Amino acid sequence: MKAYIGLDIGGTKILGSLYNESGESIKRVKKKTKADQGLETVISQISKVIDGLMENKEIELLGIGAGSPGLVKDEGIVTFSPNIPFRDFNLKALIEDKYHVPFVLGNDVNVAMYGEWKAADMKNAKNVLGLFVGTGVGGAIIIDGKLYVGRGGAAEFGHMVVSPEGAYCGCGSQGCLEAYASKSGIQNAIHGQLRKGRASVLEEYMKTDGSVIKSSSLKKAFDVNDTLAREVIERAIYYLGLATGTLINQFHPDLIIMGGGIMESLGEDMLAGIVAEAERHAMPGIMEGVAFELSHLSDDAGIYGAFELIKDHLQSK
Amino acid sequence: MKAYIGLDIGGTKILGSLYNESGESIKRVKKKTKADQGLETVISQISKVIDGLMENKEIELLGIGAGSPGLVKDEGIVTFSPNIPFRDFNLKALIEDKYHVPFVLGNDVNVAMYGEWKAADMKNAKNVLGLFVGTGVGGAIIIDGKLYVGRGGAAEFGHMVVSPEGAYCGCGSQGCLEAYASKSGIQNAIHGQLRKGRASVLEEYMKTDGSVIKSSSLKKAFDVNDTLAREVIERAIYYLGLATGTLINQFHPDLIIMGGGIMESLGEDMLAGIVAEAERHAMPGIMEGVAFELSHLSDDAGIYGAFELIKDHLQSK
Repeated sequence: MKAYIGLDIGGTKILGSLYNESGESIKRVKKKTKADQGLETVISQISKVIDGLMENKEIELLGIGAGSPGLVKDEGIVTFSPNIPFRDFNLKALIEDKYHVPFVLGNDVNVAMYGEWKAADMKNAKNVLGLFVGTGVGGAIIIDGKLYVGRGGAAEFGHMVVSPEGAYCGCGSQGCLEAYASKSGIQNAIHGQLRKGRASVLEEYMKTDGSVIKSSSLKKAFDVNDTLAREVIERAIYYLGLATGTLINQFHPDLIIMGGGIMESLGEDMLAGIVAEAERHAMPGIMEGVAFELSHLSDDAGIYGAFELIKDHLQSK
Repeated sequence: MKAYIGLDIGGTKILGSLYNESGESIKRVKKKTKADQGLETVISQISKVIDGLMENKEIELLGIGAGSPGLVKDEGIVTFSPNIPFRDFNLKALIEDKYHVPFVLGNDVNVAMYGEWKAADMKNAKNVLGLFVGTGVGGAIIIDGKLYVGRGGAAEFGHMVVSPEGAYCGCGSQGCLEAYASKSGIQNAIHGQLRKGRASVLEEYMKTDGSVIKSSSLKKAFDVNDTLAREVIERAIYYLGLATGTLINQFHPDLIIMGGGIMESLGEDMLAGIVAEAERHAMPGIMEGVAFELSHLSDDAGIYGAFELIKDHLQSK
């Protein structure tokens, strides 16, 4: 059986799936990344995932696609990764040398949102933006049906400046969308208010979640009209809407897909507000015909996007 | 002789040029747009420019390219133009019917910055942003060597939101880059300060310029260290830098070309400051290898871009 592998190389785990030519997931393997044990261990963990998927000897592997955090260039070299010890590392050369099949690599969020586009309802859309709102904020740009990465690092929508002298961001800049609309940004705001003694059901939920607040807990708090939860979500809506208006003025896309953990938990509640705020900033008439969708692949977006990426790569040859 | 026509249809004048296949301008014709006399007059003026360029009967016309203000779709239909009475007007059908050659139309700023890219030093750059800073702020997106317009209205960089509750903008939105960095925005700020009685050499220059301040007057005031001129230019640098940082995080382009009247007068003074502010907002490492150029076609950018657009359009067939 002809098959492809899609890999999602994350900071804590590596998820792999074997896909048949119709895009059905045939088998899955998950391993810890063990990023703290160094590069060689990470490579060995990646190999274990691939080997695990290839146990059935009747598989004819056509290619491997993957997503990794960080700045990826030339579809195979990780220039820098925030939480995996890749530094100007040619993962493509290594995998192709070992497995003798074509390999393509992209930034994890680019690849995941590419997967969401391939699974979207509006498949005929050719110019598409994916806005990912999870622990961080990122995205993907699809131009004329192809993932656009520029010199490798495109679609860092979390680092659009939305407030000129605004909050400091983990990237070193100031006023980034991510500082307000990501789960990390939202969490910082919540922790700050709770430390001040503000009452919120979130304090209760965090007893089970730990200091990292789950998106599902945020959703529960939002649904019971917790004022703190409402306040931080309203602020995220405001800044996401403002950024979405800017994105529409820049790209005039056919479709915007909203994904990531925050969107998958709270997207139904947030989308109308985001669109209304975007309308306020979009050029007259420009939003007509621009469609919005919420993502739905959840944790499978990365592996599915990686599969689509290698499949498309081979078909375009 | 085989030739192309490039047209720059502006709110006040229509400039046309005949180009030979090497891109040399052979002949030029300029007419008033007469936009206030209605659509039929505007069309007649466009025809007069084309007819004037075609007087030499030995010309074999291959095609006509044009730029027009407003929202252009399908390379030929003006959905809306702010200062010419085009409303969902199929200029392509009209021109092709009359002159029996292919016609392509783009937004004037998109087309002008496309021309600047074609005339840039870094011709090998494939993913390019043009940032136009003139009376308004606009731009162009070139992806993989082709002008990208999305659903028609892409690259409205003047309407990136750079300050969430900032100045109101002519587009109806709030906090747009154009409100701070365009010549109109700069002029508003200067007029406000002068009305308050602030001393500035600009008051003197405006006696010859009229209420519209020339970019060259701004440059003169900047050069004599006029505090008001320095202040408004510094503010423009700040917001242009912030927007440029955002643009790099989004597109990770090979090249950014800065054009328009403000840039052509003050670009040498402003570029270093814009790049420094962009560095503050760009993701770590992302600016490495991103090149900057100042435009140099000036008023010829529109006709030259229109020529390149029709030439490329015919070659890609």
